[in-house]
Amino acid sequence: MISRFLVISLLASTLASACTAAAVKPEASGKPRNIIFMVGDGMGYSQVKAYRYYADNPATHIIEPLPYDRYHSASVATEAITMNCAENDESRCVRDPNGITDSASSASAYATGEDTLVGRIGVGLDGTRQVNISEHARRKDIAVGIVSTSQVTHATPAAFYAHAKDRNEGDTIADQLFDNQWNGMPLPQVILGGGTDLLKREGRDITAEFVAKGYSLVSNRDELAENADSLLLGLFAPISLPRAWDRPDTVPSLADMTTAAIKVLEQNTEGFFLMVEGSQIDWAGHSNDIVGVISEMQDFSEAIAAALDYAERQGDTLVVVTADHETGGLSMGRDDQYFWNPRPIRGLKITPAGITEEFLAGDKPLSVVAARHLPFELTEEEQKELGEAKQETPPYPEYGVDGTQAYTLLSLIFDRRTQTAWGSMGHTGVDVPLYAAGPGSELFRGVLENETVGKLMQELLLSD
Amino acid sequence: MISRFLVISLLASTLASACTAAAVKPEASGKPRNIIFMVGDGMGYSQVKAYRYYADNPATHIIEPLPYDRYHSASVATEAITMNCAENDESRCVRDPNGITDSASSASAYATGEDTLVGRIGVGLDGTRQVNISEHARRKDIAVGIVSTSQVTHATPAAFYAHAKDRNEGDTIADQLFDNQWNGMPLPQVILGGGTDLLKREGRDITAEFVAKGYSLVSNRDELAENADSLLLGLFAPISLPRAWDRPDTVPSLADMTTAAIKVLEQNTEGFFLMVEGSQIDWAGHSNDIVGVISEMQDFSEAIAAALDYAERQGDTLVVVTADHETGGLSMGRDDQYFWNPRPIRGLKITPAGITEEFLAGDKPLSVVAARHLPFELTEEEQKELGEAKQETPPYPEYGVDGTQAYTLLSLIFDRRTQTAWGSMGHTGVDVPLYAAGPGSELFRGVLENETVGKLMQELLLSD
Repeated sequence: MISRFLVISLLASTLASACTAAAVKPEASGKPRNIIFMVGDGMGYSQVKAYRYYADNPATHIIEPLPYDRYHSASVATEAITMNCAENDESRCVRDPNGITDSASSASAYATGEDTLVGRIGVGLDGTRQVNISEHARRKDIAVGIVSTSQVTHATPAAFYAHAKDRNEGDTIADQLFDNQWNGMPLPQVILGGGTDLLKREGRDITAEFVAKGYSLVSNRDELAENADSLLLGLFAPISLPRAWDRPDTVPSLADMTTAAIKVLEQNTEGFFLMVEGSQIDWAGHSNDIVGVISEMQDFSEAIAAALDYAERQGDTLVVVTADHETGGLSMGRDDQYFWNPRPIRGLKITPAGITEEFLAGDKPLSVVAARHLPFELTEEEQKELGEAKQETPPYPEYGVDGTQAYTLLSLIFDRRTQTAWGSMGHTGVDVPLYAAGPGSELFRGVLENETVGKLMQELLLSD
Repeated sequence: MISRFLVISLLASTLASACTAAAVKPEASGKPRNIIFMVGDGMGYSQVKAYRYYADNPATHIIEPLPYDRYHSASVATEAITMNCAENDESRCVRDPNGITDSASSASAYATGEDTLVGRIGVGLDGTRQVNISEHARRKDIAVGIVSTSQVTHATPAAFYAHAKDRNEGDTIADQLFDNQWNGMPLPQVILGGGTDLLKREGRDITAEFVAKGYSLVSNRDELAENADSLLLGLFAPISLPRAWDRPDTVPSLADMTTAAIKVLEQNTEGFFLMVEGSQIDWAGHSNDIVGVISEMQDFSEAIAAALDYAERQGDTLVVVTADHETGGLSMGRDDQYFWNPRPIRGLKITPAGITEEFLAGDKPLSVVAARHLPFELTEEEQKELGEAKQETPPYPEYGVDGTQAYTLLSLIFDRRTQTAWGSMGHTGVDVPLYAAGPGSELFRGVLENETVGKLMQELLLSD
């Protein structure tokens, strides 16, 4: 068995010859042929750490590193511009850098290399269009792919093809997915995610227009896996994809979609730019649902592993993984307990939101429905708490059951049992992690602004 | 909890970047002559970000980077071993890696390169002494310095010279500061911080023993600045140093102490190892006091700037800045407000703890005392809240006034006005930032265990 000290000594002693080593590994610097840019929406350092605790092999005395830990090289300051206006006078505004960003503004910074206001998609302070990396790429015949577990018109994916003053202009954004053409072809060659109801709406069926342009339209995991065409539109849900642990087998994982997208895009002779978003980490954070965070982090982490596997095999692909902002002010440890406990989550196959949906659809008390799924015995007090849950209508149905009393009660049980605390139900201003692997990765160091990350990706992809 | 895999990964992943860096910055690789290791106790990414918001120049449209941002190169997973025992049966324990660490265990990992239980100082799981980097250094005639804004016997500084099963064995730890001699000389050449009452106690005056060994004993800022001797003991307070913004001019800042320590240590022909701790970021975090965090981060940041200034000028000094853990589960942004506001803190010259002490010592209502110092007008509601504060005795006097109703009420006003949220009054499990500059800095990449950081420093300092 090799001793750890020996390894470190080896490390130190080979530094002198490291420059020779660099000559042997030219693929680790220089210009990448392809870029895979991956956004964990709402993924701060705490979300990564919670997942690392969860994914740990409890049979060993160490916490095993995640596949991307070794590529952690920078953090990103993602704050947006806010207009700080005098009370009752919107004409007296000061541009303020202290704003906490949202997905629209942060994704726009990554996509265009320019800062903008919260809520905007690829449109600057003065209302002008900011050119995004997909548009730049297609002008150089570089293929483009957009993959997301939200609807493909949601803020993050939208920033990579659309321009809108308001992220909520859903129809405008959907229209641009097809209408923003280059040389007569819709902009991205590959589009995978949710949103059938948004693209196929009264008055316009954008999916049919894609098919007429030669795109394969797939709607389940098998069709996705079998695709061999070079233009691909995959829509797997009416709006967003089902939550990671609540997905039926017919719906692909984010890793499935990432792998399928790469398979199409790598056929392009001029390289590709692929944007992959793990969208629902953020939604679980807004709900202060630690199980939701872990489950969506798992889905996103498996997609990262798939992308890194490709990049490590090929040697010509830069993978940049980061986030738009942290959501929820998540902490491990509370009530002065110096321990965080992932065990109550291990063994779960369904999320608290999924349990809540089952409760809302049936006629059993929540305590009975939950007991079927939880990998631990509920205490008498917990049974009493859950037994009192009422079948309310959720006011914010985005993550399925947000705001439902039953969902909140279940989430609080997991908070207490795992020792999880939350500071907010919104976004927070802390810097987020960045992981970079492959050619050009050495540029991603220190603390970067999100628009700087966007600029670096454009420079690397577009330089000759 | 070092994983061999992690080290091997580190080796593999740093080779290429070491080379690129080496080509551009020849001074950035090779063996450092000196190491300055700086610990922000309780400093997570959120504490750094809050300070960056505060230190921002509001006249520009960007948030200016901190002097160390560009050296951010890794994060550190600091979790400690915990013994997870069966209820009512301490003989049935499982070694569990999910523990959240404390200053003693984490500083021991940095000092010795070995993991240990919470509360221990340089003593392993089985009770054996773990050799620390200061002991290694002195065996090679490398000079050692210990600088801290807490008492010099507090957990973090203690881990760099003492061995104790319990961090609270204050007298034992103080004794070891002198008794752990090497070639007849007390171990560190420079010791600066608080703790006169702990070293000069009934039955033993350790300060006199240091003086008899040839140490200069200084007790205020002027004496510290004037020191030209090569053995230096500086004690500037009975226990811990006064809080950064509440210090009289006679007490040195952490930057003053860092500069003075370097001035002594650089005279040594065989190089030096200097440990510098910004101790009270943690204490403010335990009190959920955002002003305390900002003020102590300022003191620590100015010390980092002094160390980096020296290292950048000399070219032979490795500076590693990191933390032992995050304290408080601090978040910027709450109540769905996507804005964090440092303005209520700018212009303050005294901390909420200092205002509370003034209130406790006088006979005016807190609202009146506070109004003298606050850079904003209190609302009627705030005046009413503060006016009701009672003159209680604080149960935890460490940071001055912990647990006092008046201190809590003041802190809550700053939380609301800045949009600050807290998840805990204890430590949390999130990874902490690491900044590395100078020769050997290229080894500090990815996500490192705290004991790996300790091993890397030993290897770099002690190799020939």
